Amino acid sequence: MERRLKPDAFSKIMTEKKTEPTSFEIERKFLVGAVPPGLDRYPHEAIRQGYLALDPDGTEVRIRQKGDRFFQTIKRGAGLQRIEAEILLTRAQFETLWPLTKGRRVEKIRYDIAYEDYVIELDVYSGTLAGLLTAEVEFPSQEASAVFPTPPWLGREITEDKRYKNKNLAVQGAPQ
Amino acid sequence: MERRLKPDAFSKIMTEKKTEPTSFEIERKFLVGAVPPGLDRYPHEAIRQGYLALDPDGTEVRIRQKGDRFFQTIKRGAGLQRIEAEILLTRAQFETLWPLTKGRRVEKIRYDIAYEDYVIELDVYSGTLAGLLTAEVEFPSQEASAVFPTPPWLGREITEDKRYKNKNLAVQGAPQ
Repeated sequence: MERRLKPDAFSKIMTEKKTEPTSFEIERKFLVGAVPPGLDRYPHEAIRQGYLALDPDGTEVRIRQKGDRFFQTIKRGAGLQRIEAEILLTRAQFETLWPLTKGRRVEKIRYDIAYEDYVIELDVYSGTLAGLLTAEVEFPSQEASAVFPTPPWLGREITEDKRYKNKNLAVQGAPQ
Repeated sequence: MERRLKPDAFSKIMTEKKTEPTSFEIERKFLVGAVPPGLDRYPHEAIRQGYLALDPDGTEVRIRQKGDRFFQTIKRGAGLQRIEAEILLTRAQFETLWPLTKGRRVEKIRYDIAYEDYVIELDVYSGTLAGLLTAEVEFPSQEASAVFPTPPWLGREITEDKRYKNKNLAVQGAPQ
């Protein structure tokens, strides 16, 4: 149930207090039983991300390359006190910081798969996480989420399984 | 004994392994008993810095404004494994990140005071650290460090007192 930032909000000041639990996106996450046929026909993009720091107070500092765009995201605090900021990085800034994420990285290719009224984001991991595939879907409401007609190639639901959060995958690797 | 990066190295890739303890700068740090006369005649610059994250593995993510220049510095690991990277930030990047340093900041004015063959960096803290003054001197060798003719306005030496490290001042405030 990771909350994501909309692309159109990038590169402006994005610090915000999350005081409204209802502002969280409603997402479900699944393992992938079988790769859908013709995967390469779908739009896809290479993503690599790594964590510069994981503070026990809940703060995380993440950098991410998505295609040819580069971001740094800070999340600090927890619950109602949680705040978040994201900045665009230049490629040079990103490349300077990347070595410091060694040992806590996630690399994957993300496919955007149109299905019914939704877009399923299918992540095919590589590197130390090779073999892992997950898929995420975002919904406009709890109701829509509940009646989602899961396609047959989706496997076990892992929405509530914290081991599959990218932060934990980066540090602990794929769950056995 | 904080190691600092040379200005001419900014904005290029600076990640480096510190495998040579001898590459550390030799510095001594003091409390300041009395402000030297005519302080405002010396070159000075406002500095504010804050910590985005402090990871128990020793990683710190610091942003700093020095005059009208902005930096982000990451230090990761400890001892021989310690690596460090610094990038220049734009003002907009800095201002987006600054709110997330709330509660762990240091603000000060740094005066560069020429004294004998040295430059003493005198830091006059403000904000929650108002009243604290420290001074730091860098030496070319252990020998020079040992025979430094301390000017009378310098007080107790705090080189080995970790409470005066900026990271600890930012989090814990001024020692009592």
